[in-house]
Amino acid sequence: MNYLYVLRQFGLLLAVMSLAMAASLAYEALSFLSGGGGPGEALAARSLGIAVVLGLAVGGGLYLAGAKEKDKSMARREALLLVAISWLIGAALAALPFWLWARADGGGETHIFRSFTACYFEAMSGLTTTGATVLGSEGQRIGDLPNGLLLWRSLTHWLGGLGIVVLFVAVLPSTGTGGKKLFQAESTADQGGVRPRVRETARVLWLIYLGLTLACIVLMRATGAVNWFEALNHAFSVMSTGGLSTNDASIGGYDSVSLDLVTTLFMFIAGVNFVLFFHMVQGRWSIAWKDVELRVYLVLKLAVTALIAVNIMGGSIVTTTGRVIEAGLFQSIRFASFQTMSMQTGTGFGTADYDLWPELSVGLLIGLMFIGGCAGSTAGGLKVIRFWIVIKVIYQALERAFRPNVVRPLKVGKSVIDDELKLSSLTYLIVMGLLTGLGCFAVQLIEPSELCNFQTAFTASLSTLCNVGPGLHGVGPTQNYGWMHPASLWVLSLLMALGRLEVYALLVLLAPRFWRGD
Amino acid sequence: MNYLYVLRQFGLLLAVMSLAMAASLAYEALSFLSGGGGPGEALAARSLGIAVVLGLAVGGGLYLAGAKEKDKSMARREALLLVAISWLIGAALAALPFWLWARADGGGETHIFRSFTACYFEAMSGLTTTGATVLGSEGQRIGDLPNGLLLWRSLTHWLGGLGIVVLFVAVLPSTGTGGKKLFQAESTADQGGVRPRVRETARVLWLIYLGLTLACIVLMRATGAVNWFEALNHAFSVMSTGGLSTNDASIGGYDSVSLDLVTTLFMFIAGVNFVLFFHMVQGRWSIAWKDVELRVYLVLKLAVTALIAVNIMGGSIVTTTGRVIEAGLFQSIRFASFQTMSMQTGTGFGTADYDLWPELSVGLLIGLMFIGGCAGSTAGGLKVIRFWIVIKVIYQALERAFRPNVVRPLKVGKSVIDDELKLSSLTYLIVMGLLTGLGCFAVQLIEPSELCNFQTAFTASLSTLCNVGPGLHGVGPTQNYGWMHPASLWVLSLLMALGRLEVYALLVLLAPRFWRGD
Repeated sequence: MNYLYVLRQFGLLLAVMSLAMAASLAYEALSFLSGGGGPGEALAARSLGIAVVLGLAVGGGLYLAGAKEKDKSMARREALLLVAISWLIGAALAALPFWLWARADGGGETHIFRSFTACYFEAMSGLTTTGATVLGSEGQRIGDLPNGLLLWRSLTHWLGGLGIVVLFVAVLPSTGTGGKKLFQAESTADQGGVRPRVRETARVLWLIYLGLTLACIVLMRATGAVNWFEALNHAFSVMSTGGLSTNDASIGGYDSVSLDLVTTLFMFIAGVNFVLFFHMVQGRWSIAWKDVELRVYLVLKLAVTALIAVNIMGGSIVTTTGRVIEAGLFQSIRFASFQTMSMQTGTGFGTADYDLWPELSVGLLIGLMFIGGCAGSTAGGLKVIRFWIVIKVIYQALERAFRPNVVRPLKVGKSVIDDELKLSSLTYLIVMGLLTGLGCFAVQLIEPSELCNFQTAFTASLSTLCNVGPGLHGVGPTQNYGWMHPASLWVLSLLMALGRLEVYALLVLLAPRFWRGD
Repeated sequence: MNYLYVLRQFGLLLAVMSLAMAASLAYEALSFLSGGGGPGEALAARSLGIAVVLGLAVGGGLYLAGAKEKDKSMARREALLLVAISWLIGAALAALPFWLWARADGGGETHIFRSFTACYFEAMSGLTTTGATVLGSEGQRIGDLPNGLLLWRSLTHWLGGLGIVVLFVAVLPSTGTGGKKLFQAESTADQGGVRPRVRETARVLWLIYLGLTLACIVLMRATGAVNWFEALNHAFSVMSTGGLSTNDASIGGYDSVSLDLVTTLFMFIAGVNFVLFFHMVQGRWSIAWKDVELRVYLVLKLAVTALIAVNIMGGSIVTTTGRVIEAGLFQSIRFASFQTMSMQTGTGFGTADYDLWPELSVGLLIGLMFIGGCAGSTAGGLKVIRFWIVIKVIYQALERAFRPNVVRPLKVGKSVIDDELKLSSLTYLIVMGLLTGLGCFAVQLIEPSELCNFQTAFTASLSTLCNVGPGLHGVGPTQNYGWMHPASLWVLSLLMALGRLEVYALLVLLAPRFWRGD
């Protein structure tokens, strides 16, 4: 293992993160100069400033320390280690501004950000594009945070999302992890277009991501429901399928049909495999058109929306602001469509308190959380393509039971799915289930049962592992994670990282052979 | 599909079942003649009599109707259809005596057995060796049932268990279903001794089963805690890992250390792959000694017993009769050991109200329920060998993440597990998880949430699918299923059948191709 090289790359990453932090600082400084800030804003600026300096110093130091390794390239084990520490240690740097601000009495004596655990949780939630927050209770509303910190909070989403897209589409496939297979299965089977030039691919992906984000900002602002600052923050959150909002009532706080529509549309887009966009910008539209995963994703979304709309129609919908709306045809479709897309992509925005919806709807939403969006997107969960492979494998097993000698290749689109890919999809599902169970179990052991019932523990575990954000009951759409014991927050932070990095990239660190390198 | 041949075999099975029922009738008649019975007993005798006549008539009729097919042999599809209808329709015949007795006012006007659904549930619970009961509430205690019906209830267990052992060890492997692979993996890899002669194998298995049952009866009686009738009933229940008891407080009702020990021992035996006993009676002890599944089964049992014993020690244990015992070292081990074995094998007997135990212990018991006993035993659940294969596959996937080019064969003992067997184990686990989820969801939709919380619905679904019996809360060790809506009872009856027949044998009936036979 070439540790020096890994540290150099990690240093680079910390430096980039610090520069993004510096952008938040600049925004803070600008609004302060234009007379918008009070003493709280000054504190925020100072906290961001310290973190930027620290980040640049450590990052730059590591980068320079590894200078003699600069011509090396990255082998698989190095890539995995880099990815793991980027999220695990990167979250600590990202948490710093929140913590420094609270320690300097920015939010008052009882602010939750005085706990570094809570800050780390919030930062990990950002970088993993989960969107679970510890903020929102009395005295520590999201809106009370200075704008600079709010912007940094949304930026962690955006950086995390960018990192994931580049990682899973451009980097990991070239080092040959499981991800590659999933893309090969469908999108690049006959193209091979994405892999060869990692650097070039990463550049195109980043431009696509940036372009979509800009489009999202403009369209959100165009609805008139939000100002530019809010549009910026929410666009960062949407494109990364994150879910952190600057509004305590999430998107529901703006109560705008057109904003709901724009958000739903961009959540959908963010849940699509970025390989398809890559092909589209190069004029190969037919690949996207024929993509099986995209079709399944779309059909799932429409079918579940319809089911939930019918299920909630005729009753009443309570929005995240507490307003009660009669559930006619239009409102049912509006809220069902938004919530379905939000849960499936793992964005986790809320417009309605779905915790109050009938059990069928809640069950469907939980199911969608687990399935997640498309591979190669910023969405979380199992991923639609794996879900589809598992369904096909089960159907095939059924058929085998009475026709053992008929061996038919399992196909997704025109690609034959080999045993290895079947096994890896099934194994991944089982590991996800296992981790959800273990997480739920751990939270139940930590939290007293009068505070945290089974649904709370289970959905907190599932929601963080699938990088969604909210769950049910104690962590429902109008609740937050601030009440939890620090030990629970660590468990859930770990689940977020595990879910985001598709488990293995982190779990390998536990294998002695990984370190011995034999 | 040769329907006539299937019906002939099914007729034979109904006739055999009716003869077993006739044995219960004979017992009833004997105790009546010896002055033991009242009018309730006479009603029970009449109900059993009607059912016997009906069963023999229908069974005999079907058998004779198919006479011209007698020299045919059974292909896979015929075998699967026979198995499916044997349990699904067989349970209806088995339910008949209960229903006729209650309809004739045997248990009073409000007895739950007046509902055929409840009777079918009880009979299915018997034949699938689940051990879930609708009896036990005020006015319809288990002990109020006439002895003949109690005996028939226990006999359904014993017949079901025998059927499963013969089916999975002797019949299905020869027609080539998944089961075969599982046994080949370990026990018969280098022997091939079990498969060739189905009839001979079945005979030996039946003798082993009978011998173990007799040993169990004698040892249980020898403890002095139970009379011969109770020993007989409980031995039927233990050897089939069923769980129905003649005592409302289950084995805990006798509060005997030696009875607990004997029961624990025979539950363990009943959870062992019968192929191993087959080898043992033929003097091949080394095969049993080297069997990996047996070792894992034993280690799991000991490890979880130790964990639970430590976890409950120092507190207090409430027995199923409501007595509170101080949890010292001895009592902790005693109750932990019993409950662990009971849940893992899916027997479902209770000595303690584990619903009151700490969350860690409850979680471990739920985990064991899911894992279950060994393949080729009467135990339910996923089966230890599949669990072991899944664990190994997950470990291998982890290793692959950083060493993709090292391809090592996955071995269990000396047998190499091929991709097909890996896939079928993983698929089976996922299907079990899926069915548990669907069952839980269905029960939650049916039952009002104030009667049935999530734990109740989830463990009812899991417990019936894994053929255990009791679950938690509303279906906990001191509760029963009698309060449930008939629709829930149908759902759970179906889950019992699905779990018992390892899912595919039933699910294939839904595939159009199965019927078309192409």
